[in-house]
Amino acid sequence: MANDALRRQRRTGRRPGENRSRDAIAAAALRQFGARGFDAVTIRAIAQDAGVDPALVLHFFGTKQSLFEGLVQFPIEPWVVEKLLAPGVEGLGERLARFVIGQLRGGEVGEAMVGLLRTAAAHPRAAELLRERYVRDLLEPLAAGLKADRPELRASLCSSQLLGLAVAERIIGLPPLVEAEPDVLVKIYGPTLQRYLTETLPI
Amino acid sequence: MANDALRRQRRTGRRPGENRSRDAIAAAALRQFGARGFDAVTIRAIAQDAGVDPALVLHFFGTKQSLFEGLVQFPIEPWVVEKLLAPGVEGLGERLARFVIGQLRGGEVGEAMVGLLRTAAAHPRAAELLRERYVRDLLEPLAAGLKADRPELRASLCSSQLLGLAVAERIIGLPPLVEAEPDVLVKIYGPTLQRYLTETLPI
Repeated sequence: MANDALRRQRRTGRRPGENRSRDAIAAAALRQFGARGFDAVTIRAIAQDAGVDPALVLHFFGTKQSLFEGLVQFPIEPWVVEKLLAPGVEGLGERLARFVIGQLRGGEVGEAMVGLLRTAAAHPRAAELLRERYVRDLLEPLAAGLKADRPELRASLCSSQLLGLAVAERIIGLPPLVEAEPDVLVKIYGPTLQRYLTETLPI
Repeated sequence: MANDALRRQRRTGRRPGENRSRDAIAAAALRQFGARGFDAVTIRAIAQDAGVDPALVLHFFGTKQSLFEGLVQFPIEPWVVEKLLAPGVEGLGERLARFVIGQLRGGEVGEAMVGLLRTAAAHPRAAELLRERYVRDLLEPLAAGLKADRPELRASLCSSQLLGLAVAERIIGLPPLVEAEPDVLVKIYGPTLQRYLTETLPI
């Protein structure tokens, strides 16, 4: 255990406790940005939510702006797209719907995406950062796995439906979507996404 | 002309010049909220954009908060849904897509909706106001015109796709959507909306 901790410290240059504090701050920042928007959130509120001293937030992340910039890469893990694509394009629409809807109903990635969306909506610079990461880590890998015409447009069409569900359910809060069973939404949105991904586009 | 102006003044209790200033302030506020988000916008910036004195903004609208609350009813006109529904449900998906996509590419209603969306994303109270108006003035009238099972869910599904297009194109700015011809998007999204509106839902 001591050796593990030592190896970890050598590898990252950080003590394990520091990593825990960093993760706690990142998670708290996403919660706070998501619930209240970029402007209303203070370093103090993030520190309080994370159970650390405000000075530690500044030590790890610098300004609120640079903290946000660091968070943009937090929720989008390349393995997500890889895993969804692994069984092939058949059924991909439904797998994609199931993953995103599951996340919107309480997953960590969903919380983070809603937090980023809220912040991007109010801050053009945040929107630009989100677009760069979104295109590089989600849209392009998904497009590359499609082997169809206009793969980037197809991936973007899926994004437009899934982002819209996030906004309609989590930001505006339209009651029929908020109240719908996840399985029902998967069955409705799966075929829409599959059409965007693999069917002939009327172009 | 003088009589018209007089009648107008009697009817509204305002001089025509006042109405023009009010409209100019409302339009400027939506532009400013849309471009920069609620928090970053000042009464002074709105006044400057509208070409009026800041005192006039406060005179007409009171605080920035009450100005925003007044704007929520601005873009959503009941005649929009009536007009889209008038020819019946056949082709409604395409008409709805054409209207919204046209607005997103430069219409006044589109600008206003993007401005409201940006503000709602960062401000829970704004989101609540937007939801109330959205449900009352768009979702319920659309649902009432469908004569199908689960009309509110169907109208909400359409909203989720159209809001998502607004977010993906105008807020995040995904290049394949930004660069697509409006007619192409109408042909792609029309059938999705039509399916949500009239086809059997897999529930």
